[in-house]
Amino acid sequence: MPNIDLFAKEKEQRSKLRTSDPATQYMIDYVEGLGMDTVFTRQKRYEESFMGIFPKTGRCDFGSMGICCRQCLMGPCRVWHKDVGLPLRINTPNQSRGTCGATADTIVARNWLVFHARGCAAHSTTCKDTAETLLKTARGETTYELKDKAKLKAVAGKLGFNGGASDAELAEKIALTVLSDVMGKPDGESNKDGMAFANAYLPPKVVARLKELEIMPTSSFEDLADADHQAAIGMMADPYYFIMQSLKVGVADMMALAMTTEIHDILLGTPSPVPTKIGINVVDEKQINIAMHGHIPTLCEKLIEHSQTKEFQDKVALVGAEGINIVGLCCTGAEVLQRHQIPLAGNNLQEDLLIATGVVDAFIMDVQCSYPSTHNMAENFHTKVITTMKDARVPMADHIPFKAEKADEWAKQALELAINNFAKRPGKSHIPPHEPKDAIAGFSVEACVNVLSKLDAENPLKPLIDNIVAGNIYGVCLVAGCTSPKLATDEAYNVIAKELLSKNVLIVGTGCAAGSCGRGGMLDIKATEQYAGEKLKAVLQALGEAAGLGAPLPPVWHLGSCVDNSRAVSLTSALAVALDTEIKDLPVVVSAAEAVTEKSVSIGSGAVALGFPVHIAVVPPIVGSATVVKLLTEDMKELTGGCYIVDPDPKTAAKTLLDHITQRRKGLGLSVL
Amino acid sequence: MPNIDLFAKEKEQRSKLRTSDPATQYMIDYVEGLGMDTVFTRQKRYEESFMGIFPKTGRCDFGSMGICCRQCLMGPCRVWHKDVGLPLRINTPNQSRGTCGATADTIVARNWLVFHARGCAAHSTTCKDTAETLLKTARGETTYELKDKAKLKAVAGKLGFNGGASDAELAEKIALTVLSDVMGKPDGESNKDGMAFANAYLPPKVVARLKELEIMPTSSFEDLADADHQAAIGMMADPYYFIMQSLKVGVADMMALAMTTEIHDILLGTPSPVPTKIGINVVDEKQINIAMHGHIPTLCEKLIEHSQTKEFQDKVALVGAEGINIVGLCCTGAEVLQRHQIPLAGNNLQEDLLIATGVVDAFIMDVQCSYPSTHNMAENFHTKVITTMKDARVPMADHIPFKAEKADEWAKQALELAINNFAKRPGKSHIPPHEPKDAIAGFSVEACVNVLSKLDAENPLKPLIDNIVAGNIYGVCLVAGCTSPKLATDEAYNVIAKELLSKNVLIVGTGCAAGSCGRGGMLDIKATEQYAGEKLKAVLQALGEAAGLGAPLPPVWHLGSCVDNSRAVSLTSALAVALDTEIKDLPVVVSAAEAVTEKSVSIGSGAVALGFPVHIAVVPPIVGSATVVKLLTEDMKELTGGCYIVDPDPKTAAKTLLDHITQRRKGLGLSVL
Repeated sequence: MPNIDLFAKEKEQRSKLRTSDPATQYMIDYVEGLGMDTVFTRQKRYEESFMGIFPKTGRCDFGSMGICCRQCLMGPCRVWHKDVGLPLRINTPNQSRGTCGATADTIVARNWLVFHARGCAAHSTTCKDTAETLLKTARGETTYELKDKAKLKAVAGKLGFNGGASDAELAEKIALTVLSDVMGKPDGESNKDGMAFANAYLPPKVVARLKELEIMPTSSFEDLADADHQAAIGMMADPYYFIMQSLKVGVADMMALAMTTEIHDILLGTPSPVPTKIGINVVDEKQINIAMHGHIPTLCEKLIEHSQTKEFQDKVALVGAEGINIVGLCCTGAEVLQRHQIPLAGNNLQEDLLIATGVVDAFIMDVQCSYPSTHNMAENFHTKVITTMKDARVPMADHIPFKAEKADEWAKQALELAINNFAKRPGKSHIPPHEPKDAIAGFSVEACVNVLSKLDAENPLKPLIDNIVAGNIYGVCLVAGCTSPKLATDEAYNVIAKELLSKNVLIVGTGCAAGSCGRGGMLDIKATEQYAGEKLKAVLQALGEAAGLGAPLPPVWHLGSCVDNSRAVSLTSALAVALDTEIKDLPVVVSAAEAVTEKSVSIGSGAVALGFPVHIAVVPPIVGSATVVKLLTEDMKELTGGCYIVDPDPKTAAKTLLDHITQRRKGLGLSVL
Repeated sequence: MPNIDLFAKEKEQRSKLRTSDPATQYMIDYVEGLGMDTVFTRQKRYEESFMGIFPKTGRCDFGSMGICCRQCLMGPCRVWHKDVGLPLRINTPNQSRGTCGATADTIVARNWLVFHARGCAAHSTTCKDTAETLLKTARGETTYELKDKAKLKAVAGKLGFNGGASDAELAEKIALTVLSDVMGKPDGESNKDGMAFANAYLPPKVVARLKELEIMPTSSFEDLADADHQAAIGMMADPYYFIMQSLKVGVADMMALAMTTEIHDILLGTPSPVPTKIGINVVDEKQINIAMHGHIPTLCEKLIEHSQTKEFQDKVALVGAEGINIVGLCCTGAEVLQRHQIPLAGNNLQEDLLIATGVVDAFIMDVQCSYPSTHNMAENFHTKVITTMKDARVPMADHIPFKAEKADEWAKQALELAINNFAKRPGKSHIPPHEPKDAIAGFSVEACVNVLSKLDAENPLKPLIDNIVAGNIYGVCLVAGCTSPKLATDEAYNVIAKELLSKNVLIVGTGCAAGSCGRGGMLDIKATEQYAGEKLKAVLQALGEAAGLGAPLPPVWHLGSCVDNSRAVSLTSALAVALDTEIKDLPVVVSAAEAVTEKSVSIGSGAVALGFPVHIAVVPPIVGSATVVKLLTEDMKELTGGCYIVDPDPKTAAKTLLDHITQRRKGLGLSVL
């Protein structure tokens, strides 16, 4: 049962090293040598703070354990707890309730739920924007195209839109369905049977379970307004219902991901595996470097397009640069990686370090995961930070508002700014000498099915199922989520991947977790030989041959951005349907080891609701309530079949994940280790 | 400029006494004598906590100042600040930013915004529920009626629904308009020109200003999803836009109030002034006492109705009680006070005390402001706590789910439970000996206009305007909001009212603030003689005579529940339109002195956005950022014309409010003191 001692284990992990990526470490050292702070520097100061009044958690014990309440103006309240460090414990009223009477259980569960509201809000508002872009495109109001017609028809088919509609009509119907799944319908009934996409996309048995547990989402905005309402003072007091609402909001979030992925594929094309590079030094001293950071790939699409026109190539030549080098970060990075082979410069923790190379002429952000650290760093360098969205403004940044209808004008403005800034580059650059890693990315479900169909054209899932049944693929683990300075950054995902690969567990990855694997060399086909167990290696070799690579597939399949966690859910759902079972019975597990954002929490809970075991290594602020800990890590197994696993040590976590896979294999009557 | 020293002033206020209501003090003493805790007890323990590590704020300095951040899993972070108490300051990393790089300005503004999201979520989801009840009623699916047809037509007229529609059709149209103002429209456009009610109900010049500032709300749910999104890690960093979003969400909240009030009036009747009683001892030892607490008056309507039927009166007789005595608390209390003369037992801080009388057989709560303290207290007494709504569940309470379509069955079940519980009442009761206060409540806008029309039937606003111009009514102050144990409870509102009344400022009150005035005797017509300045007294006397009372109107007009703050806005808007000016120019001010809930914060910011100066006496968690303090208390005067005033001392606050009135009178060229 997770408790306060876990914080010591967490500290042990980050004390080993700050990051397992040498290029990242190199840049941290450089920046700190300049007397500037990074995210890592500020993390370290917590360790070094004088006297160490919070020796256990390294930060505030109350906040770390979830027993700090700041909901109302009677507070802030802190609940007395035996595990809080002595100096603060004796300065805390010895009472087990907040001023209003809320118990630690209520406070912990409430704080936990509000994480989800922000996470779901992030994915849902982005999904709404994306649906509006699809709608406008269908109506001819943008210069985007319905690029993947097969995907368009497949989505329409899943939603039951058949008959002789035109592509534009289908796109419009899909967009409107997405909008009402996100916003609900203001007709007094809304989606009373649940979100259309949830009904259409999830396995029927999972849908039935969600409805039975009353956690089938109605619409993202309704469910998150309910969450915010529940979290207000004098509202919900029962930890059980808080946790169940966190699952409901999590499922709404997961469906927002699914809808966003589908629209991205329709508008921008469904990815298929492509080779690319990952590492900080994908920047090029001789070119104009534009870093794209955020979560809205429609935005960068036009930038990429215009960067290649003669008009802009001429302008580039005029300022004496050799070209325009677009590099990606975070989820935008994953999106352009898989669709345009654009190299990935880094994650959420490399953004400020990248600027410190001195060669980033424009740093374009849209929404989410763009730390203020980036803007702070940019003040010391020539880099222009360009904000684009109304909900993510930064003081002093250049703001060029992005609208889908004016995407071309936007891209041209942004390119102009970047090109003009090249001349202001200081003489000296500082790019880490470490070569970027080779990587393959773009494992959409369609791409996976395409490869598998080379083995069985009639029933492409059969080779996958057969290999799972035979134990050649012992199970599947999705590594997903952020990277955190609270651990040895990048380390956890790579350790877990290596441990499980050796046991013939296939690893799939998304977002910054996939980026970590990339920096660890695990997205490279060469890693298969090195890390995969013998049985898995044979499968990857056969699949690589079938795909015409003349080499094995890599041992970690990069599925895309965090939004593309939906691809993992889609593939697992397809397996569940094929086997007429639930996700909870399948040997598929998740690790979001280095979770940082509220989004990672709400996706995590969505996954738990759907029946996945979800590991996190960073200790979540729940250990102040044994009730909440038990609900999330134990009771949930009986309710949804999923659960949270909290363990800062990636080695023991890998073992636990393997145990879950083994248990599930046993349940299915399959061979076990 | 508000700063850390204000906390000492706040402490000084609460140190004087715990409450200015003797009956409340009596019950606190009784309960504490039994060894049980109340909200007041837990507040006091913060004062007494050993060593006093936080001597300035009495709680956590970081949280109190707003410089604690718990948004993401990298945290909790605390920002070093010179004003934090020494023991903690030297244990805090000496850095001015959170781990992600967020400054104190970003953190304070972000924390401030998330208050608003919860507040607006509370009012908006309740508004949605209310609109659904109207819709079902229009469709004949409930046993409610369209009770006030004149109001129905007036609302329809304001929204431009003219022509030969039936009452049911108009009600349906209104309900659907409300639903799309709350939820938005999933059509890709939503309410792009702003909420329909905001456009229809606010003065045109205010509407224009909101649009110019880009804070015209689209719909409650969209704007609060945006707020949650902005508040996520790595999103908004600019304090200015956080604050502007808090105003936008505040206006959305304010419109949710307006819509809810209008529907309440349509379904339950528009209130007009009625005499009633206020105080804890409105409970009756010989009757079955049912306390109704919450915010949904449609729920209690049926309870009241069925409590008077022969069926239930017979059941009451069977258990040996003399009748059913329904008493109200909080906003439900204000609603049934103004429509059914049902006595008000208390506010948010009397709920647990009321249970300790030992004679409350059922305590029914719906949503909001029902502190866990209540349930804790009920465990020690025979009182049955009945929860009714899915979003406010309490462990161990009896849950009887309420649905408008089944309101009669619900009411009967709840009555049965209460009646059956009478027999379990312990022998001894403990009702405070203090007689309840006489009070008049029910000053809807329509009731005010009705009285004024007796002076000028053609132009009922003219007598009001004339009296303001002549200085007989020097200005108007709305007292609104909660009551807080952080001050001498009830004291601030009564002191402010008395100070301003003596200067001929008319006081109007809502929610728990109006309840405070009631306990202070200020809703009684006898108070006019005692407290009103000579000029105001003459006006109240003339109005009382015109209304046929043969006595003056009371000096504090009780406008209803917190939702009915919309009535104050409506009346002020009517004045602004009549004078072709903005709310910001009128001598109308607000005090939400004892604000507790997130709702009070979001209504407060809505009022600031519309142009009101809003006083709060409880120090809000913003003093850690001079930028945010300046934005809210100074810069806002130039932007919206409104502002926040923070002052724990009600006497000096009254003087500041009077100064604002004087400044505005000067601006209008009117006589000043």
